[in-house]
Amino acid sequence: VFIAYPVWASAEKATRIAALHDATPDLRIGVDSAAGADALAAAVSGSRRRLRVLVELDSGHHRTGVEGAEAVLDVARAARDAGLDVEGVFTHGGHGYRPGEREHAARDEVETLAAAAAALEADGFEVGTRSAGSTPTMILAAATDQVDEIRAGTYALGDRQQLSLGAIEPDGIACAVAATVVSATEDRLVVDAGAKALTKDRADHLAGFGLVPAYPDLLIERLSDYHGVVVVPPGAPRPVLGEVVAVVPNHICPVVDLRDSFVAVLGDGTTENWPVDARGRSG
Amino acid sequence: VFIAYPVWASAEKATRIAALHDATPDLRIGVDSAAGADALAAAVSGSRRRLRVLVELDSGHHRTGVEGAEAVLDVARAARDAGLDVEGVFTHGGHGYRPGEREHAARDEVETLAAAAAALEADGFEVGTRSAGSTPTMILAAATDQVDEIRAGTYALGDRQQLSLGAIEPDGIACAVAATVVSATEDRLVVDAGAKALTKDRADHLAGFGLVPAYPDLLIERLSDYHGVVVVPPGAPRPVLGEVVAVVPNHICPVVDLRDSFVAVLGDGTTENWPVDARGRSG
Repeated sequence: VFIAYPVWASAEKATRIAALHDATPDLRIGVDSAAGADALAAAVSGSRRRLRVLVELDSGHHRTGVEGAEAVLDVARAARDAGLDVEGVFTHGGHGYRPGEREHAARDEVETLAAAAAALEADGFEVGTRSAGSTPTMILAAATDQVDEIRAGTYALGDRQQLSLGAIEPDGIACAVAATVVSATEDRLVVDAGAKALTKDRADHLAGFGLVPAYPDLLIERLSDYHGVVVVPPGAPRPVLGEVVAVVPNHICPVVDLRDSFVAVLGDGTTENWPVDARGRSG
Repeated sequence: VFIAYPVWASAEKATRIAALHDATPDLRIGVDSAAGADALAAAVSGSRRRLRVLVELDSGHHRTGVEGAEAVLDVARAARDAGLDVEGVFTHGGHGYRPGEREHAARDEVETLAAAAAALEADGFEVGTRSAGSTPTMILAAATDQVDEIRAGTYALGDRQQLSLGAIEPDGIACAVAATVVSATEDRLVVDAGAKALTKDRADHLAGFGLVPAYPDLLIERLSDYHGVVVVPPGAPRPVLGEVVAVVPNHICPVVDLRDSFVAVLGDGTTENWPVDARGRSG
């Protein structure tokens, strides 16, 4: 189990982290600051085992993670001195979500991991894991021999964004939102899928809030909580009132978080309800 | 109970609508098409009571609802002929969510309701309810004697958007997301509240994805699922690593839908967990 996130072990979370660590021999947690490492170490100070941590590196996405060999060493030494087991390094090349940046971001991930690992090994650390991530970069980063672990997630269900980036093929989209046309005028439809069904997630390079494969000319122009307002170009094929259309969300991850279950269509055409166990657990 | 929405009574939903109608004497549902009215009527055809409906009017938001007296009469007559009880009219002046448009939208609501009611009464309908809505327009529309019902909702918890529109005062904000600072550089913070905690809802006139009242100069510039990336202007007061800050969401409605419970702070300072019963029920 790898929590690839610089979890802050507040007083409230410390108890949960300690219990998780005791129950989960392979638990690993991300760190990107000496203070964060100290807090994690304090949380697990009563445990017989040392907690394994990986230092997070900023490979160009500029979110979490440290930049440069000195900063990596500072965090790794602080973690080791606090009593944590520094297992390796990880990064998330999230800038690969920009069109045309997949190759670049994957190379940044690999090079950043390699440089940090070299600095750590030169300082006496044993680097057991170099972990990269993200669906856009996974195939490219994994094709090198410098990555031990890939943390891609979106590929499992696929979405319009990954398709637009070339990270998946059309048959890699396994999940859609079923939306019913509830209202119609000459140039407009309204479906019963709004921001509480599709989310307002929209990368700058995408127009509208989802794709309707059966009617590709439709533009889901705006969402309110329960309404999706769809522009119909003149003459374009369109669904009728009451018709149910499949909408491929821009970004499937927050969409899944809105639902308590999936309707899974099995190979023989029958359906099952699959619970979304981990939804609503953010923060 | 008023479902102010043009629910499409599909075969699957018809059974649920009939059961709800039988169990709920005051149930009312919106209609904005003859076909939608026919489907509703078919759904409740086995009931001893007629289902009450209100015709939805487009007062300028251009989402659902019909425009013009002829269209109102067409839908109302179709509903009556199908065996439904036409109780009145309703509208949602959602264009009042644009800055400076509250008064205009409230006037549009009132005038649209009045014109439709007059057309229906001239045609022999008894108009029992003229219903308007939305937190931005509620006080203005209610100040006239031409509205029987107000369907505002956001005011109950308040959010940054309503504050920016002047629809509520600062003390009208009753809900915030607790976010912990998990990572920091010189000009950037990362909090553990991302799109799965705050949503990417952002009206065009708002910068960033929420307001941090304790540190008003911070800009929540971008969100990924679990990270909020916060820009810190040079010299601005800033929280330290591990600090918990209250973030006022741009739009509270979809935020509530992400959580299974609220932490309610009572008058005496104690807290309780309040379940969010209706979340995850969209669509």
